[in-house]
Amino acid sequence: MTEKFKMIGFDADDTLWMNENYYREAEAEFCTLMSDYCSKETAEDIIFKTEVRNLDLYGYGAKGFTLSMIEAARLISDEKVTQETIGKILQLGKDLINKPLILLDGVEETLKALSSENIKLIVVTKGDLLDQERKLANSHLEDYFQHIEIMSDKKSLNYQKMLSFLNISPEKFLMIGNSLKSDVIPVLELGGYAIHVPYHTTWQHEEAGKIINERFKEIEHISQLKGVLNQWGK
Amino acid sequence: MTEKFKMIGFDADDTLWMNENYYREAEAEFCTLMSDYCSKETAEDIIFKTEVRNLDLYGYGAKGFTLSMIEAARLISDEKVTQETIGKILQLGKDLINKPLILLDGVEETLKALSSENIKLIVVTKGDLLDQERKLANSHLEDYFQHIEIMSDKKSLNYQKMLSFLNISPEKFLMIGNSLKSDVIPVLELGGYAIHVPYHTTWQHEEAGKIINERFKEIEHISQLKGVLNQWGK
Repeated sequence: MTEKFKMIGFDADDTLWMNENYYREAEAEFCTLMSDYCSKETAEDIIFKTEVRNLDLYGYGAKGFTLSMIEAARLISDEKVTQETIGKILQLGKDLINKPLILLDGVEETLKALSSENIKLIVVTKGDLLDQERKLANSHLEDYFQHIEIMSDKKSLNYQKMLSFLNISPEKFLMIGNSLKSDVIPVLELGGYAIHVPYHTTWQHEEAGKIINERFKEIEHISQLKGVLNQWGK
Repeated sequence: MTEKFKMIGFDADDTLWMNENYYREAEAEFCTLMSDYCSKETAEDIIFKTEVRNLDLYGYGAKGFTLSMIEAARLISDEKVTQETIGKILQLGKDLINKPLILLDGVEETLKALSSENIKLIVVTKGDLLDQERKLANSHLEDYFQHIEIMSDKKSLNYQKMLSFLNISPEKFLMIGNSLKSDVIPVLELGGYAIHVPYHTTWQHEEAGKIINERFKEIEHISQLKGVLNQWGK
């Protein structure tokens, strides 16, 4: 048996299902709530800076985002924000957790096609475990995946620990995701394979520059994955 | 090689290190902050009910606890709580995340003794991933463990999934922890082994009643673990 890959890891948010736009919507609602105190631009700036400042402490996910919104609202309003608004922010956070799960196009078909192969499929994601498990359950994709690996941060060392524990050598591992920084670069660094499926043509894409590596491909749509696997001689 | 166990799982909070008392301290401070509005007993009752109501949504950990404290403060004060107090609650939550890591007695010696054996040691915990990873890093115990498994809830099904993915049959797995409900009962149900190390002689202990099972032991102190392993013929 000389199969090219033993394991394929899928990023979850914005690779399997929609996520980022829900956060952007919540952020827009937050800015509206702050409109008595400052401009939309200022509110956006302060919530962003508050999130970044708290990232080490809170990590990724809706709960940390909610706490940062409350902190930012107190800052923006010079502690004058009403309890009614605090209540609305708490609810905004709860609504964010309960957003409907919308799969991206082609995801289920691609997973179905791969599931007939002798390759273990796993989800590799950062963020809040409970959020991610809830989304996976709501996605009805659970049966395709043998494992969810939640990393606090998708760094090379964390991928290495995971692969070493699972007894998978990096060249037998392929990672698929929408982030060059989290899903692609750390895996290529280890000697693994990576496929980038950009969610939007965003700044993120430009930021990391062009990657030229025989173990890397960029595809426009997840349904092109099988084609790449064939090309790589899976 | 006929070793009894291939893998030993350790619960983290209140098994490897102190945790619960930090939450109780934060809760006491919360009740003091609420003393303008209600009695200590009422504040305790409302924060507890708020936490339980939000558990499905927020899960375990300091961030969900902080959000529940803010929600409870709004309820208790009939939305009259000051922004100064909201700020103090946010800080209480941040302090909780940053509490010093204090290992329980005998933990390091026990892990050191086990590390010379051919058994994989893992941490199996519920709660917030980032919190747990931070604690593990601060504990300086990281090198003893090959993997941290974070479960959103320590149910039988979740242990089964983990063991199946890791190719460990339940009778080769031993779980050690301070909770009968989370660490012992679900593992015994699967056919695995479990050791209970109560953190305090608490209601929790009484709640689940006496367990009589040849795959179960209760010890007073983690340093007795090696003795049980010898008895079981590891």
